[in-house]
Amino acid sequence: MKVLILGADGYLGWPTCMYFSRRGHEVMGVDNYFRRGAAVELDCEPLFPTPNLIRRAEIWEKLSRRTIEVRIGDATDYGFLNRAFEDFRPEVVVHYAEQPSAPYSMVNRDKAALTLTNNLLSTLNIIHAVHESSPDCHIIKLGTMGEYGTPNIDIEEGWLEIEHKGRKDKFLFPRQASSLYHTTKIQDTDLLWFYVRTWGISVTDLMQGPVYGLSTEEANLDESLMPNFNYDEIFGTVLNRFIVQAVAGHPLTIYGRGGQIRGYINLKDTLQCVYLSALNPARRGELRIFNQVTETFSVNELAEKVTRVGEKLGYSVRSNYLPNPRIEKEEHYYNPTYTGLLELGLEPHYLTHETLSEMFQVVEKYKDNINMSAIYRGVKWHK
Amino acid sequence: MKVLILGADGYLGWPTCMYFSRRGHEVMGVDNYFRRGAAVELDCEPLFPTPNLIRRAEIWEKLSRRTIEVRIGDATDYGFLNRAFEDFRPEVVVHYAEQPSAPYSMVNRDKAALTLTNNLLSTLNIIHAVHESSPDCHIIKLGTMGEYGTPNIDIEEGWLEIEHKGRKDKFLFPRQASSLYHTTKIQDTDLLWFYVRTWGISVTDLMQGPVYGLSTEEANLDESLMPNFNYDEIFGTVLNRFIVQAVAGHPLTIYGRGGQIRGYINLKDTLQCVYLSALNPARRGELRIFNQVTETFSVNELAEKVTRVGEKLGYSVRSNYLPNPRIEKEEHYYNPTYTGLLELGLEPHYLTHETLSEMFQVVEKYKDNINMSAIYRGVKWHK
Repeated sequence: MKVLILGADGYLGWPTCMYFSRRGHEVMGVDNYFRRGAAVELDCEPLFPTPNLIRRAEIWEKLSRRTIEVRIGDATDYGFLNRAFEDFRPEVVVHYAEQPSAPYSMVNRDKAALTLTNNLLSTLNIIHAVHESSPDCHIIKLGTMGEYGTPNIDIEEGWLEIEHKGRKDKFLFPRQASSLYHTTKIQDTDLLWFYVRTWGISVTDLMQGPVYGLSTEEANLDESLMPNFNYDEIFGTVLNRFIVQAVAGHPLTIYGRGGQIRGYINLKDTLQCVYLSALNPARRGELRIFNQVTETFSVNELAEKVTRVGEKLGYSVRSNYLPNPRIEKEEHYYNPTYTGLLELGLEPHYLTHETLSEMFQVVEKYKDNINMSAIYRGVKWHK
Repeated sequence: MKVLILGADGYLGWPTCMYFSRRGHEVMGVDNYFRRGAAVELDCEPLFPTPNLIRRAEIWEKLSRRTIEVRIGDATDYGFLNRAFEDFRPEVVVHYAEQPSAPYSMVNRDKAALTLTNNLLSTLNIIHAVHESSPDCHIIKLGTMGEYGTPNIDIEEGWLEIEHKGRKDKFLFPRQASSLYHTTKIQDTDLLWFYVRTWGISVTDLMQGPVYGLSTEEANLDESLMPNFNYDEIFGTVLNRFIVQAVAGHPLTIYGRGGQIRGYINLKDTLQCVYLSALNPARRGELRIFNQVTETFSVNELAEKVTRVGEKLGYSVRSNYLPNPRIEKEEHYYNPTYTGLLELGLEPHYLTHETLSEMFQVVEKYKDNINMSAIYRGVKWHK
């Protein structure tokens, strides 16, 4: 398979490049280094430095004898992106090329505008490039469970049949998100659904929950192949942050009452899900949607797990209930369905004590790098 | 009331400026002349030239003794827009500053990208400017009935309570549109709904059907005050186009089988609806949605009406069933609710023989200006 990976330098992008490459597929990775720049600008760099994408591909080639082609450029630049499609002729494109942070999108108007234009133009450009240059190319798009928000009804996988006044129709499951970033992902879905119906493109939209972890089989080959691991408030995901906080002796930053429930997934399972989706593509004219999580936890449950494992490992772990800087429900119903990827063959890595212990061990190794000022800045949803 | 009108040079914008001004309100009109430029570029200029916005405001002032303040600039430029809010401190902002054409958005990738970024950035900027400079300002946003598409269930006014597996919640009514332009309006609604919940802004979103007509009480004061009247495939709305086609002796351009049903509204009633919304604002933290139509017709019914009235006036009117350049259902269920604006006091002008005759008479006057090559270009949804 020829696989084009956009956002190839990111937390998920680089492990995905190696995962496909190791399994004998031809990979082209594209990135504009947006996130590296933003992390420097906001003084929230990852826990350890990682080589740039070109150097990573070189190291990978030395260790694996497999080539990953790299292009540095911006998916919002249609000329650049369409050339990549024309030169490479991918059979699958994996779209990670988005501004992925909710707090970043809430800092100010300029960062909201960047999030909006980056995410929507990159998605629009991919759709147009596929239609123009590679009409059979399967688009795998990373969405987010956050698109659904926390409705008072069960969350289905993407779609809902609605009966109203005695008549029926099937629609996208209702979406209402709790940040500008998450709202741009809803808007991406709107875009994809329109062009799927109009041009008959083939799309898998993966509604992913917050990802945790930093170990993958490929990354474990060499320290220089590890993913960018953010633990700050802007780009870090909650479980990754809690572990760094525990190691650093910083109280766990629980927002509000901590009753917020979300679906979570191990980085290793993200790779499986994307790979399984690529092996079993959506049909032409199909927008196939999977909920990409393996278990659900409240923030309090995560904090308890981190506390328990941390204390076993000798850390003294405290929690701090902070006034919630976000606007979100702190106690709510939450019951998502997530069977589609299991049916494709996903074998979940659950959040065990062992997984948590491993994460503590890696973080401990880089403990001296922790920038305490990045842990909590308090980007508020409402000024 | 201090009313800021964005897109003040447009088909709806300029009549709205005069409507508020005549009723004693303080009006600032803003436009970037996008549509004038696009009409020249695509060789589809309006039926008769209109003075630019500054000249129109001068003429209006001479005739009415009332001032309309004008600023020429782009709502996607946040610095410019926010200065307008800070200087003028509006109590209401009417947002017409969008690329309004479905075919324009389907011409190619660049015009799709322009539609997407213009419509979403203008909406984002208005929201941020309101939040930053005028938090009590009521946003009146022009949406479109096209956001709903043609579902197989009754269309409610913006919202739907859904029962699923024994639990209930209320959501935005499902939206799925049939052009990129209409999709950007869905995305606008996503944006507004997020910020309404987060910042407690006050928004009225008017889901308008295709507008027809060119006469308003204010415009009738002087020929130079008439609205821009487009009759071409790109910027013209269907009934306006049919009347020009009938006058020009061009067969009416019916797409496909002509069974497409939509809700329609007279330009005079658009003005009433916006005015009534301004007088009765949405609450803080409310996204209030009205379906802004007064009757529904199929394309075939419109063609029949135009034929009947045209032939009475001595025109020989033919119809041409063209292969549909769009992708849309040509026979479908369609039952929208539209009671909210009637309850606010809207007194509809229905599509009578008299209304049609008046439109024929005005168009006849400018018959020699008709550019036959602009009537049908065949912008296809699928290449």
